[in-house]
Amino acid sequence: MKTPVIQNTLLDRKFNTRLYFKCENLQRGGAFKFRGACNALKVLMAETRLDGVATHSSGNHGTALALAAGLHGIPADIVVPEDAVRSKVDAIRQAGGRVHFCRPTQADREAGLARLVEQGSTPVPPYDHPLIITGQATAAWEMSEQVDTMDALITPVGGGGLLAGSALALQQRNLNDVRLFGAEPAGADDTWQSFHSGHRVSGMSPNTVSDGLRAEIGEITLPIIRRRCQDILRVTDDETLIAMRQVWEALNIIIEPSSATAVAAIAKYPEHFENRRVGIILTGGNVDLDDIPFLR
Amino acid sequence: MKTPVIQNTLLDRKFNTRLYFKCENLQRGGAFKFRGACNALKVLMAETRLDGVATHSSGNHGTALALAAGLHGIPADIVVPEDAVRSKVDAIRQAGGRVHFCRPTQADREAGLARLVEQGSTPVPPYDHPLIITGQATAAWEMSEQVDTMDALITPVGGGGLLAGSALALQQRNLNDVRLFGAEPAGADDTWQSFHSGHRVSGMSPNTVSDGLRAEIGEITLPIIRRRCQDILRVTDDETLIAMRQVWEALNIIIEPSSATAVAAIAKYPEHFENRRVGIILTGGNVDLDDIPFLR
Repeated sequence: MKTPVIQNTLLDRKFNTRLYFKCENLQRGGAFKFRGACNALKVLMAETRLDGVATHSSGNHGTALALAAGLHGIPADIVVPEDAVRSKVDAIRQAGGRVHFCRPTQADREAGLARLVEQGSTPVPPYDHPLIITGQATAAWEMSEQVDTMDALITPVGGGGLLAGSALALQQRNLNDVRLFGAEPAGADDTWQSFHSGHRVSGMSPNTVSDGLRAEIGEITLPIIRRRCQDILRVTDDETLIAMRQVWEALNIIIEPSSATAVAAIAKYPEHFENRRVGIILTGGNVDLDDIPFLR
Repeated sequence: MKTPVIQNTLLDRKFNTRLYFKCENLQRGGAFKFRGACNALKVLMAETRLDGVATHSSGNHGTALALAAGLHGIPADIVVPEDAVRSKVDAIRQAGGRVHFCRPTQADREAGLARLVEQGSTPVPPYDHPLIITGQATAAWEMSEQVDTMDALITPVGGGGLLAGSALALQQRNLNDVRLFGAEPAGADDTWQSFHSGHRVSGMSPNTVSDGLRAEIGEITLPIIRRRCQDILRVTDDETLIAMRQVWEALNIIIEPSSATAVAAIAKYPEHFENRRVGIILTGGNVDLDDIPFLR
């Protein structure tokens, strides 16, 4: 689904820049993840009729996959760590997904998924897959049609599906002058480490309020990102929460902490954004309204 | 500014209807009021150069007028009752408006405005003026271009500028089959009373959480509304707050209580909306995040 791009003079003035907010929080399922899941299922179903799909997810990808599977009339089984945000688990169920809880470790998540695959489900990974990456690419592609000229584009980075997809979209549209940045929580900065060291850092224990950005950078996404991105910009959770509230108040939209990292990066690294036309992908808006840090 | 229309399958399923949400909460100044103020100033300034404009307002109209005046480089003086929502007063100032506090009575508001007019400001009323009404009409007009077919259209009603404007827009576009409704808080139901009695009820003491709908129905807006509207639908504050939370959660946007009355009316009066294609104008999103009833 095409999402709107909105502007805001208050934030433009505050950050001394011109910002274009791509509202993937208004996407079906409340996050850009619907793009990747839809694309993957469209291509896979064109090849062969699947009996069902499965994934492990603590949130938005699970909802997206359930919604996409629903469009094709097939079931979606989602392995969910038992510490996932309650509202995101509800959203998976409301989207028609079947939830299977597991202990919150990577090994348990993978074991749960393996069992479903044994039973005949086709696994659809959250980000490290070409069909997912090219699906996520449609957000930046749309944006390049909705905004006249962008000097820079910034997206949050967790597993890297959206950022790698954005890199591919800019390349495909010959927008070689658009500087591309990723925003990452300082407490889950495996992408920053991998970007600068040149080898994929894995196994760190993420510690961040941005629950959508705790995943490890992917094997496929990392080289795409290293080839096209200017830099990965790190922000603290405090900076993220300040930016989150600024967006809620100025734009009247609900974004989740993961989305706010990109806005926090604009505030923190003015050398890259001041007096520029900057596209920001607001990745999602799925929060638990009973558990908003700045409203407690 | 053109605002997006968004849809949501969750709410469609919940209310057994197809809803098209016109997001005036994403309008400049966070409310549809910018449309009326802009239109009024455009026309007035084309006739004669004004030295400044003034109004009394507890919120959105004041911000809208300040923004519109800023576009023409003239000052805006806003008389604000001292019990106005803090965040709305901040918004008037951020928009460049000069705030003049007064005691929260109609008489004090009007006296404050009269003083400013004596000093040379041109008064721009919030709703009961042809230029304001035709400005507000652009929301429904845009919507009729953005949505293929609507069976019904519903807007909140306070002073009636938006509802009367919507009536005019439907007429102008020859959309005579679109049923038009107003949604009103039961604790400020002067429009409902006036609509059904045929004479304008005035002087009631409004008691509602919907701070944007406490104004009295206008002398110009009422007959336009009576001629074209099917009915005025009354909702309680409890119903409004439930609907407000449903919209925040399902659509990931922030709407103020006034906007939520229209959604509450859809839930309460299914006989008018079930299995229909229904346009809803979400009028504004200016809330104080520290004072959200369902988040306390």
